[in-house]
Amino acid sequence: MSAKPALRPSHDSDSRPHVVIVGGGFGGLQAARSLAGAPVRVTLVDRSNHHLFQPLLYQVASAVLSPSDIAAPIRWLLRRQANAEVLLAEAQGLDLDGRRLLLTSTALEYDVLVLAAGMTNTWFGHDEAWSPHAPGLKSLDDALEMRRRILLAYERAEWARDPDERRKQLTFVVVGGGPTGVELAGALSEIARDTLRRDFRHIDPSEARIVLVEGAPKVLGTFGGELPQRALEQLEAIGVEVRLGDMVETVDANGVVVGGERIEAATVLWGAGVRAEEIGGALGVELDRAGRVLVQADCSVPGHREVFVIGDLAHHRHAEEAGGEPPERPLPGVAQVAIQMGKHVARALQADRDGAPRPRFRYRDLGSMATVGRRRAVAEIGGLRFAGTFAWLTWLFVHLMALVGFRNRLAVLLQWSWSYLTFQRTSRLIRGSERAPDQLDAPPAESVL
Amino acid sequence: MSAKPALRPSHDSDSRPHVVIVGGGFGGLQAARSLAGAPVRVTLVDRSNHHLFQPLLYQVASAVLSPSDIAAPIRWLLRRQANAEVLLAEAQGLDLDGRRLLLTSTALEYDVLVLAAGMTNTWFGHDEAWSPHAPGLKSLDDALEMRRRILLAYERAEWARDPDERRKQLTFVVVGGGPTGVELAGALSEIARDTLRRDFRHIDPSEARIVLVEGAPKVLGTFGGELPQRALEQLEAIGVEVRLGDMVETVDANGVVVGGERIEAATVLWGAGVRAEEIGGALGVELDRAGRVLVQADCSVPGHREVFVIGDLAHHRHAEEAGGEPPERPLPGVAQVAIQMGKHVARALQADRDGAPRPRFRYRDLGSMATVGRRRAVAEIGGLRFAGTFAWLTWLFVHLMALVGFRNRLAVLLQWSWSYLTFQRTSRLIRGSERAPDQLDAPPAESVL
Repeated sequence: MSAKPALRPSHDSDSRPHVVIVGGGFGGLQAARSLAGAPVRVTLVDRSNHHLFQPLLYQVASAVLSPSDIAAPIRWLLRRQANAEVLLAEAQGLDLDGRRLLLTSTALEYDVLVLAAGMTNTWFGHDEAWSPHAPGLKSLDDALEMRRRILLAYERAEWARDPDERRKQLTFVVVGGGPTGVELAGALSEIARDTLRRDFRHIDPSEARIVLVEGAPKVLGTFGGELPQRALEQLEAIGVEVRLGDMVETVDANGVVVGGERIEAATVLWGAGVRAEEIGGALGVELDRAGRVLVQADCSVPGHREVFVIGDLAHHRHAEEAGGEPPERPLPGVAQVAIQMGKHVARALQADRDGAPRPRFRYRDLGSMATVGRRRAVAEIGGLRFAGTFAWLTWLFVHLMALVGFRNRLAVLLQWSWSYLTFQRTSRLIRGSERAPDQLDAPPAESVL
Repeated sequence: MSAKPALRPSHDSDSRPHVVIVGGGFGGLQAARSLAGAPVRVTLVDRSNHHLFQPLLYQVASAVLSPSDIAAPIRWLLRRQANAEVLLAEAQGLDLDGRRLLLTSTALEYDVLVLAAGMTNTWFGHDEAWSPHAPGLKSLDDALEMRRRILLAYERAEWARDPDERRKQLTFVVVGGGPTGVELAGALSEIARDTLRRDFRHIDPSEARIVLVEGAPKVLGTFGGELPQRALEQLEAIGVEVRLGDMVETVDANGVVVGGERIEAATVLWGAGVRAEEIGGALGVELDRAGRVLVQADCSVPGHREVFVIGDLAHHRHAEEAGGEPPERPLPGVAQVAIQMGKHVARALQADRDGAPRPRFRYRDLGSMATVGRRRAVAEIGGLRFAGTFAWLTWLFVHLMALVGFRNRLAVLLQWSWSYLTFQRTSRLIRGSERAPDQLDAPPAESVL
């Protein structure tokens, strides 16, 4: 490892401390921005060139939005910040003693390291067997793969003569009753009932069966009060079959086994498990069961004051002192936690420069929301809980305002207005077609007359 | 071949003649639409699920537009046409005697066949060796691959320490001086000089070298009068190095050899050669050198009145009677030819039903245009030739109006306005990153300090 040459990205004569940030999500981007005025130089490393507005990723998967509506180049977002630069590369490991971040073919020296690498999908210990049949939803590529599978299933159903085959193509299983699963299931229902209504000649898309599977006894388990029940009612009102308290036992190319029962389904979408990105393991400190790094009160790593872990990758046990979560539960994996931790890093480094003790990180809960469909959502804001049209409008407004860049906001507003008025989804493209024609000859041999 | 089962897509009892159309481009889609009122049933077969507005494809390649801005599901475009259905499948061959179109695993019986499969890329007989290093521009996947390569080159240049490596990453070669090549070269210049201006710390994107190579003595050779010269001046004014009369001799991973001279370039874009899709060869009739089918005056195939070939796939030798092209030259491969031929098919079938002789196809030339960049374009309309801002505005207007769907027009207008005012390109996403991290560790080993 130490044989790799060290890369000093900026001016070698620059004596300012070098802050290296891994991850250009909400946490990493905010950390970089909050250091704009600090006497440091910042390098943000990400394996993608874009910051992704993940809360709307399910809308790319369900063909409402285009990738570029919810993503912007990190380099562009930081273009005016003179002390920041961006490196498109993948973090492979750490040399903590040498203070170097190891990349594929080189290494990056740091004075301060901020790990904000986030989470990735996991399939309950069946990654290899299940992931090909049940794509997760963490990246744009994931979303486009989901979109491709959803749209292809209808194409195949249209030309299937065998009723069982047709039934299988028109069955969609969503695993996981958290916000991602609920939002996906709701979107699938709208695609079936509204979007595709006139498009086919041999099938009625509204006959599609959409099954949402959740192992816990309720959906949206992190929401309080009656909101899980309200979300359940909203899902059932739009025809989603919700199976609570049922574990997924098998996933294969033709469906799932849930609570002992086999469901034949051509499309299985995974919204269930996430685990921390592996770079956290390179720290050699205690991780929680999901692989998150157990951080100190100031978000630094035990024994390494110069290393911070923020966002989804961090398990912060000190939240109870802010009056919030009980100590054994990590903060929720939402944008606000990551953003507030990103700001906190800048404050901690400022305290270091002032010779003052670093402040503890305190999370200010701004609320949470999930949407089920047209005029259907649940929200929990400042102790208030509400559901229905007002929650949906609030959801629209908050997400629109949080989007990066005026152009994106305008484009998304246009798409949403259009979709709302016409019931259409404008990004219904099946791509990769030229490369996989064998998959696309719609009528499978066994089901053709 | 004849062992394949026949697929009768629609109601088996339907006795209306079955018109099968291969290809959902301008020609095939228009043919389907023009048959809306005819007593036939129509099946449109395409290997993609979307109709593509190809004239704007280079704007996806150059990060101005999103794929969904210029593409719409064929199924959706034909949703209201009760006598039409759509099949996502790839045509593999023909059984002319049995009147069957052969698909991968099945076959489709027809009474009338319309081949509108268009053209694909060709690399002057070096397809296998050159195509990996010089992507062409026929599909959305092609465009996204171009976009990825262009953006990655700048990422690599930013982190390259070796000046030769940096130079190579900042050199872009476009092969072909037709409209595609000219538009790509112009877009590359704008990306270098405007879009990326503030984004990098170690390189000046405006130092990028953009070389346009054309074997003929002028660019835009199909345009008349002084327009080729005007386009050349426009290209040179924005810093494009145009090499006329030079043939490309070699293309490899590190550049090209042109007119005996080696140019080191990380990015080579192919806008030079196209050849007909192979399905035309299955007809067993005479083809021209590019593989186009030599059709009769009514666009049918010699000896097979029930088979039409239209659009780019057709070589129509009878145009001189319409007062236009000399007989030995095919009509240009533009949307208008395909659209007019699509309409012609419906007229020919109407004549058949009326017991009248089929009309000859006559092309009405509505003009041609190509754009070089901001306020730079050339146009030839109704005998008038003009260049500059007015040609550019005309180009914008005509392309906007020709786009399918009100939503697309609005979205594209928004993108164009935004790009014009801000000099930004909003689709600067490098995707496929998660799947190819090795390619993305920006600093190549040999060029890192």
